[in-house]
Amino acid sequence: MALVVQKYGGSSLESADRIKRVAERIVATKKAGNEVVVVCSAMGDTTDELLDLAEQVNPVPPEREMDMLLTAGERISNALVAMAISAQGAEAWSFTGSQAGVVTTSVHGNARIIDVTPSRVTEALEQGYIALVAGFQGVSQDTKDITTLGRGGSDTTAVALAAALKADVCEIYSDVDGVYTADPRIVSNARKLDTVPYEEMLELAASGSKILHLRSVEYARRYGVPISVRSSYSDKPGTTVAGSIEEIPVEQALITGVAHDRSEAKITVTGVPDHAGAAGRIFRAVADAEIDIDMVLQNVSNTEGRTDITFTLSKANGPKAVSELERLKPELGLTAVLYDDHVGKVSLVGAGMRSHPGVTATFCEALAKAGVNIEIINTSEIRISVLIRDAQLDDAVRAIHEAFELGGDEEAVVYAGSGR
Amino acid sequence: MALVVQKYGGSSLESADRIKRVAERIVATKKAGNEVVVVCSAMGDTTDELLDLAEQVNPVPPEREMDMLLTAGERISNALVAMAISAQGAEAWSFTGSQAGVVTTSVHGNARIIDVTPSRVTEALEQGYIALVAGFQGVSQDTKDITTLGRGGSDTTAVALAAALKADVCEIYSDVDGVYTADPRIVSNARKLDTVPYEEMLELAASGSKILHLRSVEYARRYGVPISVRSSYSDKPGTTVAGSIEEIPVEQALITGVAHDRSEAKITVTGVPDHAGAAGRIFRAVADAEIDIDMVLQNVSNTEGRTDITFTLSKANGPKAVSELERLKPELGLTAVLYDDHVGKVSLVGAGMRSHPGVTATFCEALAKAGVNIEIINTSEIRISVLIRDAQLDDAVRAIHEAFELGGDEEAVVYAGSGR
Repeated sequence: MALVVQKYGGSSLESADRIKRVAERIVATKKAGNEVVVVCSAMGDTTDELLDLAEQVNPVPPEREMDMLLTAGERISNALVAMAISAQGAEAWSFTGSQAGVVTTSVHGNARIIDVTPSRVTEALEQGYIALVAGFQGVSQDTKDITTLGRGGSDTTAVALAAALKADVCEIYSDVDGVYTADPRIVSNARKLDTVPYEEMLELAASGSKILHLRSVEYARRYGVPISVRSSYSDKPGTTVAGSIEEIPVEQALITGVAHDRSEAKITVTGVPDHAGAAGRIFRAVADAEIDIDMVLQNVSNTEGRTDITFTLSKANGPKAVSELERLKPELGLTAVLYDDHVGKVSLVGAGMRSHPGVTATFCEALAKAGVNIEIINTSEIRISVLIRDAQLDDAVRAIHEAFELGGDEEAVVYAGSGR
Repeated sequence: MALVVQKYGGSSLESADRIKRVAERIVATKKAGNEVVVVCSAMGDTTDELLDLAEQVNPVPPEREMDMLLTAGERISNALVAMAISAQGAEAWSFTGSQAGVVTTSVHGNARIIDVTPSRVTEALEQGYIALVAGFQGVSQDTKDITTLGRGGSDTTAVALAAALKADVCEIYSDVDGVYTADPRIVSNARKLDTVPYEEMLELAASGSKILHLRSVEYARRYGVPISVRSSYSDKPGTTVAGSIEEIPVEQALITGVAHDRSEAKITVTGVPDHAGAAGRIFRAVADAEIDIDMVLQNVSNTEGRTDITFTLSKANGPKAVSELERLKPELGLTAVLYDDHVGKVSLVGAGMRSHPGVTATFCEALAKAGVNIEIINTSEIRISVLIRDAQLDDAVRAIHEAFELGGDEEAVVYAGSGR
């Protein structure tokens, strides 16, 4: 008998009918002899509808109240799934994040889990119940206010619960049936992966893959929780995210997949005085605005002792970063702050590149052959990322996928459901 | 400086726009120098929409989950009102019933408040915040599950909070601007009452008046909380419910108003054996089905030693009561179980009838003159109620209102908003 944690995303729960289908799967898992804990996101459009209502009454809503408001969505979906399970002959109790013992920091809208003490969940399981836990939320250790966990919060809730309960697996259900060697909507012969080690999944998630959120993969890796990425629309086996690249024998290490990211923009600050501290002032100004930076490129200074600094960031933060840097212009004597949101990032991920020389060369040659110019390059031990023109992203993904022979023989399955 | 508790019903909160209007009133109350605590029901149709979703996934939803589901509604409205208040320059925190210290019994769907320990509300007030508390809900003392309080639950929450906080007044806002001598939609010269003592309001509420719920009036009376019934659409003074009929000098005691009730049905069990125990069996069968009975009439037994027993109950419980009694038929040798849902109840309420003989006579004469036949009569110290044909209810209300000269000179204000 295993303890299974399942997480269902909003599109899997978007109607009463989908809820009943999800309940069938949950009940089947229970009847197969497992203990089952389920984490549900809010139904379909609920979160967006609540955000819209909030904006109508206050364009800049206080964060504490935003968390009170949004957490209603998960409460609704989990209670409905519990009811649907009950209609199908099993018993279920739903719990809020707080009731399930999810304790967090006080940062509203982006709280981090400090601890999970799921005693009420354990009691429910001991009494033969299926336990449902509202995802995306917890209670602040300090203020006892309700908090939400930021993007991917429901995935994080599920993995954190699985860790605390020492579950055998954490199944993440959405409308995609696994992790592919590239986005099947771009690469028609993309192959579904059977297994991906944690470190590679972390890189894929950080490089634009939306299948699992970075924080949940980090959590899974830290506590050794195996994640199974599956579709709520089919029974096909999914992709297992588990194990470390350290456990893979050198000769078996592979190139795993290609990720792409359209969500970034590029800022170039020109005329930066070439002395110690100037770059620091620029990056500090952006950091103080609580904006994360991704790729960085600093050119060699020119004959006038000035240089350019380029970095990428999320498009959403673009305007704010530009305005912070504009304020710095007079003081540092900068020439200009240039903003470019027609960039895209493509990345190759695989433990194999540690032991196979020439991966970078093959990568760059493939892009050159496809007529794609590299603007910034950034690597880690198991990842190569480049910034290019966003219009060339699809070509770049295909070129790299081809060059590393990642494709399978079959046509990739098109995403079921409404797509992500 | 006073401590004011305000309660806003669903129709006062049915859109972002109404929410902003309500926030204006709350902020104005605060700026006038008061401490303000607000209890909000769910927005307009939210509860019905949630009930509909529930029914789609389970025709007989488990009660614990129904409470988890429905309480999302109040969470949403209170958070939105807090946001709207913040947009208007004051600060507000919203709290769930549990966070506000509303402790209840474990009866899902109809929990009773055991205690209210609003320390977080008091802290918020001390820090200069407006406190919003989700109505209609609390937390079970035994199971720590979320519970809902049954019909009128938000009124009860408001009054219970007012009692625990020793508030100066509890203002109940809806789309009616006070308590009238009769429903103004039936009696055009119905007069708005300035004050109604608790016992009379209890009788009016029990007799069909929907303005305040019985339980909240009981609570107010027990703890001496003055209630102000007001409209959220206007600034006119409302009706104050406070004081006891014992405080009214005998000569000032009045006949206060006429209430009517279309929600009851009548059951007549015929051929009941006229021996001790038969009536008990009948009433026990109905009570065991958790059905409340209102008016009762037992006829004198006929020559065959058989009698009829008639009683009224809520229409919603009619079919269930009939089926319970049908099961009893063979055993007791009953002749028939007759069901009649074309009945209506009209009541006259007033402390004055204690000291004015002839009220019953005047009452019955007025009905007779209007051609209304009395089927059952039931009285208390300050109330006369009769069961009549529902088609005659309006005529009966007008006839009694006229006979006791309850009308004012002006045309009654038509209910603002969408009506109750």
